[in-house]
Amino acid sequence: MQMSDLLAKKRDGGSLSTEEIQFMIRGYTRGEIPDYQMSAMCMAILLRGMDDRETLDMTLAMMHSGETIDLSPIRGVKADKHSTGGVGDKTSLILCPMVAAAGLKIAKMSGRGLGHTGGTIDKLESFPGFTAAVSEQQFFKNVNDIGIAIIGQTADLVPADKKLYALRDVTGTVPSIPLIVSSIMSKKLASGSDVIVLDVKCGDGAFMKTEQQAETLARGLTRVGRLAGRKCAAVITDMEQPLGYAVGNAVEVREALSVLRGEQKGELLELCLTLGGCMMAEAGVVWSMEEAKLELLKTIEDGSALKKLAEMVSAQGGDASAIYDPSLLPQAAVTLEVPSENAGYVRRIHAEQVGLISMHLGGGRVTKESEIDLSVGVVLAKKVGDAVRAGESLGTIYASSAEKAQQAAKMLRDCYELSDEPVSRRKLIRQIIR
Amino acid sequence: MQMSDLLAKKRDGGSLSTEEIQFMIRGYTRGEIPDYQMSAMCMAILLRGMDDRETLDMTLAMMHSGETIDLSPIRGVKADKHSTGGVGDKTSLILCPMVAAAGLKIAKMSGRGLGHTGGTIDKLESFPGFTAAVSEQQFFKNVNDIGIAIIGQTADLVPADKKLYALRDVTGTVPSIPLIVSSIMSKKLASGSDVIVLDVKCGDGAFMKTEQQAETLARGLTRVGRLAGRKCAAVITDMEQPLGYAVGNAVEVREALSVLRGEQKGELLELCLTLGGCMMAEAGVVWSMEEAKLELLKTIEDGSALKKLAEMVSAQGGDASAIYDPSLLPQAAVTLEVPSENAGYVRRIHAEQVGLISMHLGGGRVTKESEIDLSVGVVLAKKVGDAVRAGESLGTIYASSAEKAQQAAKMLRDCYELSDEPVSRRKLIRQIIR
Repeated sequence: MQMSDLLAKKRDGGSLSTEEIQFMIRGYTRGEIPDYQMSAMCMAILLRGMDDRETLDMTLAMMHSGETIDLSPIRGVKADKHSTGGVGDKTSLILCPMVAAAGLKIAKMSGRGLGHTGGTIDKLESFPGFTAAVSEQQFFKNVNDIGIAIIGQTADLVPADKKLYALRDVTGTVPSIPLIVSSIMSKKLASGSDVIVLDVKCGDGAFMKTEQQAETLARGLTRVGRLAGRKCAAVITDMEQPLGYAVGNAVEVREALSVLRGEQKGELLELCLTLGGCMMAEAGVVWSMEEAKLELLKTIEDGSALKKLAEMVSAQGGDASAIYDPSLLPQAAVTLEVPSENAGYVRRIHAEQVGLISMHLGGGRVTKESEIDLSVGVVLAKKVGDAVRAGESLGTIYASSAEKAQQAAKMLRDCYELSDEPVSRRKLIRQIIR
Repeated sequence: MQMSDLLAKKRDGGSLSTEEIQFMIRGYTRGEIPDYQMSAMCMAILLRGMDDRETLDMTLAMMHSGETIDLSPIRGVKADKHSTGGVGDKTSLILCPMVAAAGLKIAKMSGRGLGHTGGTIDKLESFPGFTAAVSEQQFFKNVNDIGIAIIGQTADLVPADKKLYALRDVTGTVPSIPLIVSSIMSKKLASGSDVIVLDVKCGDGAFMKTEQQAETLARGLTRVGRLAGRKCAAVITDMEQPLGYAVGNAVEVREALSVLRGEQKGELLELCLTLGGCMMAEAGVVWSMEEAKLELLKTIEDGSALKKLAEMVSAQGGDASAIYDPSLLPQAAVTLEVPSENAGYVRRIHAEQVGLISMHLGGGRVTKESEIDLSVGVVLAKKVGDAVRAGESLGTIYASSAEKAQQAAKMLRDCYELSDEPVSRRKLIRQIIR
């Protein structure tokens, strides 16, 4: 088999066979197929597409390019969630304890990643002592004992994806649905859960700019997941403005805690109930989404979700007292309210730009080696549709210095677009694909 | 400027600006843009295309990636020919002396290349002492004095093409019209002639399999040539069977000499008259193609074309006596006639396969370092449409050993497809594009 023949086939619009896809991914992972052939293939796939069978084969070949996790030592239905990434996305911190409190098993591996804020693990490190470096044996034990663990990657999962993603990033071949699907699903499948629920974001602050693109991706992801024998659902959500109010690390933990305590209702809670509802419905432990949502809501009302989070933090070496007293979370040196210069109705909040404020304050990673400042970030006071009086707060900056806070305040003002006319609120949950 | 932005632009069907194309070709030639980005770009160009302006810019950027030849020290109209390559193509050996004898200037740089037989320079080395290693000054002097010189490349012409072609060859991106056009025309433009005539082959033995593909390429080549300010024409010719009768090196020289002596009429001569006619018509030295053909035919009848070849061979250090006594050309150790086993009419001669016979006998190059045996080859006795009796010769093998000759004889028989019904002859010249 020759990679140049595979290139000619895909170039001319043909379908690659299972064997050809395996040959390609194996060869590329081992370094036998050079970058310059693989990048041309990625461009051919982007422009010619892949059918469902090819995308499944690509996903499975990538999944098997490294180790895979066998979660069978864990009793019960294991559920996992993936978000395509957005600004202010703290759903895992709320969703996972809720679902675990409702009886599903959450055996989650999470990356740190690069972004405007840290990943879920970085955020959890706001609890002093918390560690994501847990052995596989301990991981299984924790999930069996308390129903939940969120750890860093222990195994060498999907090396093909690491290599391929770096190549796609510099060759204009990121926005290909089959390549995105195989990248996401190879990792989710390798992580071993029975139920996989996908939060596919669309809008200014997301990779998919339109709801239609997001739907195409969501359908691709769920189709491949099901073809691979897993239970799959997807929720398409709006990312034209940040999710919830806080963007940062400790500030997002604080917001998550207030949802788990039942203090903050609204769309963020609704999203967590929907994602969790999909998990429970797919797991077959409830009759309907409505029943699932009621059960999940109960875990908030009776405090069991909050308690589940505390159990997980303690089991992973962390001091859980901040869960009941958020003032113990990392505190920024400088706090600055940002009053609005004008009055009006919020028409738009540039999500991407709000993310850059967190980045500017030191809350995110530019390179893998970057140190994250957990205490910094921004907490919005107004969302799209809210009325604002002149002088009223648009949000609060949490910074390490007065200078940085001033710069961030200016940036935050620039994120807001006000209108003289009333503006309707945005709908967070656009579609549920089951 | 970032190559990844250019990739995204072309991927999405946009046009690259002049500056972007210059940045890309300059960066790639210098090694600042890596192979893996350039190969993805080649695939995007192949699948998205390039308009005329982009193709011209690409051609000019490649042309200026290295040295260019200034032919202004040569008086008169300089004409050049390019063939897209086929089996048994010895037209340059006939055409160039004819056209030079008719008054145009032939200042031709020729490569050796890889193929079933050697290139024009290898073939000319059948004349003992002939050298293609001529200084630029001597080159100009020869063309001014006798009107013709065919030499190897002295300058570092179009390094971008060497690098890009090697990359396209292994990434499935050879068959892209804008990439083929810029590859061919950048070299022709860099070589400096005023008139460029292109012989675009189509059929089984050619890169372009259909006449329609060949026409698209021919129109692309001539358009870019004209946009670059040169006189350009193209002839689309049939390559479903070898051109003429001989395939090899010395055997092709022998066939060329018999055409130049006026002994062999027919399609090979007609092609040379047509290509030469285009040159003279584009140069503006005749009123019509018909007038040009008559003038060129005169150079055969009065012996001036043969004399011109002899002058060139002598001027480049060769012994020209073989021109008047072809028995002095390199002689193969073994000569073997290949009788037909059956009777019928020749329906097909697999051109590519005939080429492989020459290769098998040692008449071509596998790698740049291969030594060519100038004496070997095959001379067909029958062409498509000819009647064959059982036992009648299909052709003659010229080989270095009896064993190789026997193998070649079997190969030659397999090249021929006979039919019981009479078969019409193939038309060599399909279209003239001026």
